Amino acid sequence: MSNLILHEYAQSGNCYKIRLTAAHLGIPIERREYDIMAGETRSPAFLSGVNANGRIPVLQVGDDYLPESSAACFYLADGSALIPADRFDRADMLRWMFWEQYNHEPNVATLRFWYGWVGEENLTEAQRLLLPVKREAGEAALTLMDEHLARTPFFAGGRFSLADIALYAYTHVADGGGFDLHHYPAVQAWLDRVATLPGHIAITD
Amino acid sequence: MSNLILHEYAQSGNCYKIRLTAAHLGIPIERREYDIMAGETRSPAFLSGVNANGRIPVLQVGDDYLPESSAACFYLADGSALIPADRFDRADMLRWMFWEQYNHEPNVATLRFWYGWVGEENLTEAQRLLLPVKREAGEAALTLMDEHLARTPFFAGGRFSLADIALYAYTHVADGGGFDLHHYPAVQAWLDRVATLPGHIAITD
Repeated sequence: MSNLILHEYAQSGNCYKIRLTAAHLGIPIERREYDIMAGETRSPAFLSGVNANGRIPVLQVGDDYLPESSAACFYLADGSALIPADRFDRADMLRWMFWEQYNHEPNVATLRFWYGWVGEENLTEAQRLLLPVKREAGEAALTLMDEHLARTPFFAGGRFSLADIALYAYTHVADGGGFDLHHYPAVQAWLDRVATLPGHIAITD
Repeated sequence: MSNLILHEYAQSGNCYKIRLTAAHLGIPIERREYDIMAGETRSPAFLSGVNANGRIPVLQVGDDYLPESSAACFYLADGSALIPADRFDRADMLRWMFWEQYNHEPNVATLRFWYGWVGEENLTEAQRLLLPVKREAGEAALTLMDEHLARTPFFAGGRFSLADIALYAYTHVADGGGFDLHHYPAVQAWLDRVATLPGHIAITD
């Protein structure tokens, strides 16, 4: 698996997921940084050459381009121990990865982005009205994780998998969105468990 | 693969995805209907016994529960021709399934639900302000699909896969959300292609 280039914005949790997966697998990846705040992923060259959806991350595999962080993680980990060998567990891993993109990321990650990058004073009227909606949905997501992790050490199949990587990325920086992780002790214990695994790297690495 | 029960609301495109996958594979599934408008998926029994996330669909496999439509489709199709054998194509199929849940469903399906179930007069202020945002994002999603389908007959690997099932479900009823599919000729041709495949069933079946 050579010729891997990650088109990314390093501080994005979605991009970090791919780097963290590659680190656990010992796969080297070339990194190419884009300034999303300057619109570099909306340029005609990016839209026609890398991703018509105008978003990072995109994993380039030779001449082919793979958008969507969870799909890129699956590509890298396909056939490895990061994907459960059991059929139900494998689907259950995907269940948490889809849940992360639908119920977690649009709330926890979006509030981190709004507060930390856009700035509260620059939000649109609709975004301002959504602040309490996303706050409540983000807290519900963290509560659901906490209840699940009180019963099992990792999200799917009882062992570390891509589901943990996908959920670690934005959960461990949720304070940037104003979420207080002290309310979720099982989540905190799981964050520690993931961060001390061999092969782990930080989002800033 | 016996003892399959689909906990669902039949008109939901997410539930239809699972029925359509099962139909193509010839897998019988028992169906159990919940009235989401009456809050039947938020009852204590549902939350503790079926899905703590309070959502349908959930595929029950024996005594285990699998939420998230795309994960359930993957479980059913694992090892079949509905999932590409090639590693990149398999990840690319998942790419479109993740994209559907992040960029398509929250816009195309949500507007269908708001107009057809909630009623425009019952929307909150934030939802009302989001109408043009979701309209534009839904049209962008359909445009991206149209450009892709102008180059390839199916979404991933050049042949029918779960990516097509995932995207067919809400696209073919997008008019319910006020989207005019006549603007997307390649999408229309693909809808016809999918609907005439052997094994196809309608959302009303």
